[in-house]
Amino acid sequence: MTVALLTDKYEITMLSAALRDGTAHRRTTFELFARRLPDGRRYGVVAGPGRFLESLQQFRFDDAELDSMADFLDSDTLAFLRDFEFTGDVDGYAEGELYFPGSPVLSVRGSFAECVLLETLALSIFNHDTAIASAAARMVSAAEGRTLIEMGSRRTHERAAVACARAAYIAGFDGTSNLEAKRTYGVPALGTSAHAFTMLHTTTTGPDELSAFKAQVAALGVGTTLLVDTYDVTTGVANAVEAAGPDLGAVRIDSGDLGVLTRQVRQQLDSLGATNTAIVLSGDLDEYSIAALRAEPVDSYGVGTKLVTGSGAPTANMVYKLVEVDGIPVQKRSSDKESHGGAKMAVRLSRSTGTIVEEVVYPVGRRPDIAEPSRVVTVPMVRDGKRVFAGDLADARALVASGLKSVPWEGLKLSHGEPAIPTRLIAP
Amino acid sequence: MTVALLTDKYEITMLSAALRDGTAHRRTTFELFARRLPDGRRYGVVAGPGRFLESLQQFRFDDAELDSMADFLDSDTLAFLRDFEFTGDVDGYAEGELYFPGSPVLSVRGSFAECVLLETLALSIFNHDTAIASAAARMVSAAEGRTLIEMGSRRTHERAAVACARAAYIAGFDGTSNLEAKRTYGVPALGTSAHAFTMLHTTTTGPDELSAFKAQVAALGVGTTLLVDTYDVTTGVANAVEAAGPDLGAVRIDSGDLGVLTRQVRQQLDSLGATNTAIVLSGDLDEYSIAALRAEPVDSYGVGTKLVTGSGAPTANMVYKLVEVDGIPVQKRSSDKESHGGAKMAVRLSRSTGTIVEEVVYPVGRRPDIAEPSRVVTVPMVRDGKRVFAGDLADARALVASGLKSVPWEGLKLSHGEPAIPTRLIAP
Repeated sequence: MTVALLTDKYEITMLSAALRDGTAHRRTTFELFARRLPDGRRYGVVAGPGRFLESLQQFRFDDAELDSMADFLDSDTLAFLRDFEFTGDVDGYAEGELYFPGSPVLSVRGSFAECVLLETLALSIFNHDTAIASAAARMVSAAEGRTLIEMGSRRTHERAAVACARAAYIAGFDGTSNLEAKRTYGVPALGTSAHAFTMLHTTTTGPDELSAFKAQVAALGVGTTLLVDTYDVTTGVANAVEAAGPDLGAVRIDSGDLGVLTRQVRQQLDSLGATNTAIVLSGDLDEYSIAALRAEPVDSYGVGTKLVTGSGAPTANMVYKLVEVDGIPVQKRSSDKESHGGAKMAVRLSRSTGTIVEEVVYPVGRRPDIAEPSRVVTVPMVRDGKRVFAGDLADARALVASGLKSVPWEGLKLSHGEPAIPTRLIAP
Repeated sequence: MTVALLTDKYEITMLSAALRDGTAHRRTTFELFARRLPDGRRYGVVAGPGRFLESLQQFRFDDAELDSMADFLDSDTLAFLRDFEFTGDVDGYAEGELYFPGSPVLSVRGSFAECVLLETLALSIFNHDTAIASAAARMVSAAEGRTLIEMGSRRTHERAAVACARAAYIAGFDGTSNLEAKRTYGVPALGTSAHAFTMLHTTTTGPDELSAFKAQVAALGVGTTLLVDTYDVTTGVANAVEAAGPDLGAVRIDSGDLGVLTRQVRQQLDSLGATNTAIVLSGDLDEYSIAALRAEPVDSYGVGTKLVTGSGAPTANMVYKLVEVDGIPVQKRSSDKESHGGAKMAVRLSRSTGTIVEEVVYPVGRRPDIAEPSRVVTVPMVRDGKRVFAGDLADARALVASGLKSVPWEGLKLSHGEPAIPTRLIAP
C-alpha cells in the first residue's frame, strides 16, 4: 500500500501552479507545530517521527496513482511527480519528547515542491499519534507503575488502531491487544478473555461458566486471565478459582462499580488462597478513573475507548506552515492565527535537579547564551533525503519516562491548567 | 496489506480454547449494535458495511501473520487459521441506513470460530465509519443544500482519513480533498488553495499576493478558488479579482469572524462585478457554526477537524455480542450492560406521509403483524461466505438522503435530545 496519495488535492494543484511560474524550486522551510495544547492539558508527548520517517522513504507516485490524477493535472506536473523523491532535510523533536505550545516539533527543508507535498501525510501522522501518546502519558502517570494494557482497537479505524497501540506503548503502556501492532512494531501483545467465550458454553440447561473457565485453563494454563463478570461476579470468582486453583494468573472485571468490586474480589480471592491472583480492570477507563482507583487493590488496567479517542482530544491540532523562503522569514498576518516566521530550533532549560523550567525557541544558528542547565531539543532526522535519526521505540519509551520525571509537579496534575512550562520565542 | 491481524489477541486465544474443547464449531449468531446513540444525538447513520464486506473477502492469514503468533499459539489453532475463510452468513442494515439504540445493525452467523475472529475488524470499521457519517449527516442537514467539502485528512490517522472522506460522501458531502479517496472509492476530489502558496511569492521587498494569484490563475484557470485571508481580506479580494477578472470561480476565507467577513466579501465581490464568484468558508466549522452561517451569503463549507473527529463523538460505541448458540438465545447478565439474546431483525414503521414513527426489533422468523406502512430494515449481505449485498456508494447516499427526509422534524434539531423514534424490542 503506497502513501503518496494520502494527500490533499490542493497540494498537488499548488505544485502545478508553482512549477509553471518557477517558484516550485525556491528553497523553503516548513514547520510543524501546535499553537496550543488540547484544552487544559499541561504537556504533550510527540509521537509520529518514526512512522513519518518510514513513510517518507515510501513517498513515491506509481502509475496507478498518476493515472488517478490525470483528469486534473498537466503533463509537466505528472512528469515531476513520476520522478519525485524527497531530497531535503528534516529536523525535529525525537519521538517521545515532550512538547509545548509553539515548540518547533518538525522542520522540513527543501524545494517548495518537495516540502508542500508532505503536508497532509506529516500532519495526519503527527496529529493522530501525538494525540494518542499525549492522552496515554496522562494515564501512565495516573497508574503509578501499575500495568496498563491498550485494548481500544475496536473503537477506532482498523489501521489507526495499530498506530494507537504503538503510541500508547511509547507513552509507557505495557502492551496492546492488537496483533498487527505486535507484528509490525514488536509491541507486546496481551490478552484476557471474552464474555462470548463464557456464553458459548451455554446449553439447553442454561449457562455453564465453570465449563468455560475449565476449557480456558486447559488450553491456556493457570496463568491465564478469567473474565468473572458475565453473570455474577462472586460466583464468577468462585468458579475461576475452582477451575484454575489458587495459582490462577488473574481475574478481569469489566463492569459495575469497579472500586467496590475490586475490594470484594480481592477479599474473596485471598480467602480462597489465591493471594497472588491479579485483578485486571476494564470498562470505559480514562486517566481520571485510573487515578480514582489508585487506592484499590488493582494490578492492571485495560484501557480502550478513551485511549484511542485521545481522552477528549482526538487530534493534536498541529499545523504545517511555510516559515522561510530563500532565507526570508515569512508569516501569515491574520489576527487570530499568528505564526512566527523563520526556521527555528529549541532548547529546554532546567534546574540542577532536572526539573524543567522553560523552553526557548530560537532562530536556527542563533542559540542563546544560557546559564542554567539546558538541552537542545531539536535533533537532525533526515539529510539530503536520507534518514539519519536512528531512534526506535525503546528510545522513545525512555524519553517519555524521563520527560515525565522532568515535569514540575503541578504539571502532572490531571486537572485543567496552563502548560507546565512557558515557551519563550526569540524573534528572527 | 492484509487485514486478518487487525484483531485482538484474546479472540485468537479464545479460539484456541474453543477448538480444544470442541465448542468452536457450535453454531452462533453475533450481533453488532449500539446500546445508545452518542450523547444527545437523535439518530445515527450506518457506515461501514461496504468496507466490512470487502475486508471479509480478504480475511485470510498468510505465513508471516501465522509466524507472528507462533510464540503463543498451539499447532492446531495455527493450522485452523492457515485454512480459515469465512463461510457463514451476514445480515444487516444497508450502508446509509439510519439506526437507533438497539438496532441490530449487523448479524453474523456461523461457527463460533469464524464469527469470533471478525469481532475487532467489524467493530473498528463500523465504529469509525458510523461515527463520521453520523456527524456528517448533521452537517449536511445544517447546510441545507449548500456545498460541503470534506478536508479533514490532516487531523486524523492517514488511513482513517480515506474512510472519513468515504463516510462523509455517503452522508451527503459533495466531495473531499483526499486523493486516495478519489482513487479508491471514486469520491469527487475538490481543492482550493493554501496560504503557503501565497507566502511562497514573498521576495526581499515583501509579500506579493497578486503574483501568487496570477500564477494560480495562469495554471488552474479563472474557475479556481483563491484564498484571500493570508494578509488582509479586503486587499486579498481586490487582488483576486484583479488577477482573475470578474469570472473568478471562488474565494475562500479561512479565519476571522466568518459571518461578518462573508457579508463584506460578498458586497466587495459584487461591487467589482464578480457577482457569480462563490464564497467558500473554512476554519473549525461544525454543524452548529454551519447552521449559524445559514443566513449569510455562503456558497460552500469546507469542514475538517470536526468532521474527522465525529464532532464530539469520535466512535459510535457499537458492540459485537454473542446472542445465540445452537439456537439458544444467550445474554450477559451484568446489571449495567444488559443485552438481549437471540438473533433479530428490524422493521421500521412510518406514517402515510413517510415520516417514521417507530422501529420494532423482533426475533428472526417472527415478524410482527403491523397495520401501519412499514419496511424491513434488515437485508441479506453474505450467504455461505459469498457477498450478496450489492449496494454501492450511490445507493448509500440515496439512503441517507431519504432517511433524513423520513425523520420527524424534531429529530433533525441539532440540540441534544432523545432518539428521533423509539425502538421496541420483542423478546425471543
